[in-house]
Amino acid sequence: MEKLSVAQARRPESTGREAIVEGWIRTRRDSKAGFSFLELNDGSCFGNLQILAPASLPNYESEVRRLTAGCSVRAEGLIKASPGKGQATEMEARNIQVLGWADPEPYPLQKKQHSFEFLRTIAHLRGRTNTFGAIARVRNQLCHAIHDFFQQEGFIYIHTPIITASDCEGAGAMFQVTTLKLEALPKTEGGRVDYSQDFFGRPTYLTVSGQLEAEALACGLGKVYTFGPTFRAENSNTPRHLAEFWMVEPEMAFFELEDTMDLAERNLKYIFRHLLEKCPEDMEFFRQRIDPTVIDTLQQILESRFLRVSYTEAIDILLASGRSFEFPVAWGKDLQAEHERYLTEQHFHSPVILYDYPRTIKPFYMKLNDDGRTVRAMDVLVPKVGEIIGGSQREDRYDVLLERIEFVSDAQPIALWRRFRSYWQLFQTGAGRATKGPFRTVFGSGNQKRVNTNEWTQDSDEERNIGDGWQ
Amino acid sequence: MEKLSVAQARRPESTGREAIVEGWIRTRRDSKAGFSFLELNDGSCFGNLQILAPASLPNYESEVRRLTAGCSVRAEGLIKASPGKGQATEMEARNIQVLGWADPEPYPLQKKQHSFEFLRTIAHLRGRTNTFGAIARVRNQLCHAIHDFFQQEGFIYIHTPIITASDCEGAGAMFQVTTLKLEALPKTEGGRVDYSQDFFGRPTYLTVSGQLEAEALACGLGKVYTFGPTFRAENSNTPRHLAEFWMVEPEMAFFELEDTMDLAERNLKYIFRHLLEKCPEDMEFFRQRIDPTVIDTLQQILESRFLRVSYTEAIDILLASGRSFEFPVAWGKDLQAEHERYLTEQHFHSPVILYDYPRTIKPFYMKLNDDGRTVRAMDVLVPKVGEIIGGSQREDRYDVLLERIEFVSDAQPIALWRRFRSYWQLFQTGAGRATKGPFRTVFGSGNQKRVNTNEWTQDSDEERNIGDGWQ
Repeated sequence: MEKLSVAQARRPESTGREAIVEGWIRTRRDSKAGFSFLELNDGSCFGNLQILAPASLPNYESEVRRLTAGCSVRAEGLIKASPGKGQATEMEARNIQVLGWADPEPYPLQKKQHSFEFLRTIAHLRGRTNTFGAIARVRNQLCHAIHDFFQQEGFIYIHTPIITASDCEGAGAMFQVTTLKLEALPKTEGGRVDYSQDFFGRPTYLTVSGQLEAEALACGLGKVYTFGPTFRAENSNTPRHLAEFWMVEPEMAFFELEDTMDLAERNLKYIFRHLLEKCPEDMEFFRQRIDPTVIDTLQQILESRFLRVSYTEAIDILLASGRSFEFPVAWGKDLQAEHERYLTEQHFHSPVILYDYPRTIKPFYMKLNDDGRTVRAMDVLVPKVGEIIGGSQREDRYDVLLERIEFVSDAQPIALWRRFRSYWQLFQTGAGRATKGPFRTVFGSGNQKRVNTNEWTQDSDEERNIGDGWQ
Repeated sequence: MEKLSVAQARRPESTGREAIVEGWIRTRRDSKAGFSFLELNDGSCFGNLQILAPASLPNYESEVRRLTAGCSVRAEGLIKASPGKGQATEMEARNIQVLGWADPEPYPLQKKQHSFEFLRTIAHLRGRTNTFGAIARVRNQLCHAIHDFFQQEGFIYIHTPIITASDCEGAGAMFQVTTLKLEALPKTEGGRVDYSQDFFGRPTYLTVSGQLEAEALACGLGKVYTFGPTFRAENSNTPRHLAEFWMVEPEMAFFELEDTMDLAERNLKYIFRHLLEKCPEDMEFFRQRIDPTVIDTLQQILESRFLRVSYTEAIDILLASGRSFEFPVAWGKDLQAEHERYLTEQHFHSPVILYDYPRTIKPFYMKLNDDGRTVRAMDVLVPKVGEIIGGSQREDRYDVLLERIEFVSDAQPIALWRRFRSYWQLFQTGAGRATKGPFRTVFGSGNQKRVNTNEWTQDSDEERNIGDGWQ
């Protein structure tokens, strides 16, 4: 007999099919009419499949009526249209086999809201909760949409090295990677660490960005993107900084900054449209339980044309706003989250792409505008988040680049020299004017020194610890 | 005017379109009839677009006739059907703009075969060569096919931690990850390294496998897969071992080993079919220049039903073969590459899935068969490669698992204890019999201590250093 996932069995078109489903019991409800309702979930979707277990089952008294949350079962029966609310189908079981019991005494997940702090202590079971299940499914669809988008746009997915000897951007503190025994470090005659005995024969680190390698490959493959883990050894206990996260870094040859802005807008809209289409139940759960505006925010982004506003215009707007910001606003200063959110949420009520930032607050490799004061950098700001993508067009004039690297080279000599060397090699060998406007999208994941447990609810104290549970 | 990639412009359906293309010159050929042919490549596909540059172009003498390999240009013109061989279209240029010159004297890539050793010295330009361009496009399509396959099968893509405190399988030596300053290590009063000052407050390493986390998530999400970087600090200078590589690790609840075998077969066939369909030119290049059997091998795999052969039968076949192997064959010993390749290439002439291996050569967590001697493990062997996927069904009986962990726990106490703890938690909390048969597929990438430069040509000395080049 055919095996269906709960997601498949819940679709109206499955009505009338004989099928087997397997999963974990969320709840059991015994009817006075002499049968039981089981709610079964297998992670394939947010919703449960309701299983009607008639008293005529041979193991009804001995097993079915003893089922509790967490038990794993195989149920066989007919998928029927459900008279109940919120579900198109249900299963009338002909056979229920208990694959594994869960003793309700020690089993920690029950039909109630558990705090995120508690769930952290049973991390191996979080995949069975509504919140973490929904996060996993949403994250999966985001990743899938990212790959689909870049493939459709003709990009080549590349894997840049994770272990590296170069500090790409001077972007942040790095984790060192070593096979030397720390308890017995080998030393040179001069008393320094003898890296010739380390795995790669030199000090190595975890990458902070695949940008350097992606740039080189874009100058042969045309359009490339990375989507892999990235590391920053920074002790930032904010909801937006992680020590380990997955990042998207596209690099395109022959792109002007305007092309990059268009790509970024298409990219975000593609991803959000895909998400709303594929995860309506998960997103509805987030709307009800985490942030009542989450779906509206995404819808609004989908329906907006992203505004293009220069940094200079943005500063004028902020200065004219009459707001008192924590960080003062002045031309030549970097924008803070409060400024970005004012622009996108209060002033424009729309996603905004800021561009042409002062050269003094941006890296040397961004293309200098004719005004001599600004560079071809851009940031995409969206409501509720602020900056979601940052990027720039690279300087492609050898003399300008040389002048700028010399100007800044005292500050970060090694990182910049490495950077420069990469450019120099490309220039020397004929990369020519392959203008590129890359950008990055960041997805948090995994390790954080101290994980912020209320990252979904950062704006509202009332919403903290709203917890989780089956319902 | 519309911008097309070289791949788009080369399609027959582009005939008649006015377009702009941008890329790098591979070669220029001047005709005595007073015009030039330019071969343009932008990395979007293996082939070049032939551009006919008439002498009537205003910059024909001053620029077009000075173009050499590596120059970047923008060409505008009409896409026409090509009378030439091996190409459906060509462009008749109305305008050619030189974006960047490449001095032919220092520019290292020329129309000849360069050795891989030489290309290694100009790694930033390898993306412009036929071989590395083809590898990038093939790898991209392999990755895309992997994601598509698992998404279609209802799997959820998960990101397991890269930095970890656990040694998943005792699978191999690990890289340590630290922010301690090695030149001035903090010490405890007892003289040991003071890990409380390290970033995570304890020793941490790069993951050797996401299996433990994937198992836990599969026991809530049903079917999950990882596809991320993995690390082994092993000094193995073979064509099949890398210090850093990308690996696919699916984990499925409610799967018997037979389900896993079917999934593995569908998976490989899906990927190979996708590859042959999407990269015919790249694969034809590999056939001509690297391995004449490569396309036939994939075709044969596609057309085969993967045979299911027990380990015990395989041993009997090897013993009866009359071959003298370097490693002796005996029941209870692990199979070596020479045995695997004999089975798949010489005996069965087909992909083979070996299953039910002796318990003594497999980890404790694989499900014990009723014979008490073998476990539910499998390896997928394909011609020309040998083992390409390995997997197992997990032991789901608490008492059996406990007995086996106690039996082996002296050997690798810490790694195994961690492993066991994960199982124990799942059992204790009602994972029940959620049988899983996971497998892994391995893709090499990136770092290797000493990279083997002839990994595409390992079986034939004559083929070494066949090099690369434009043609």
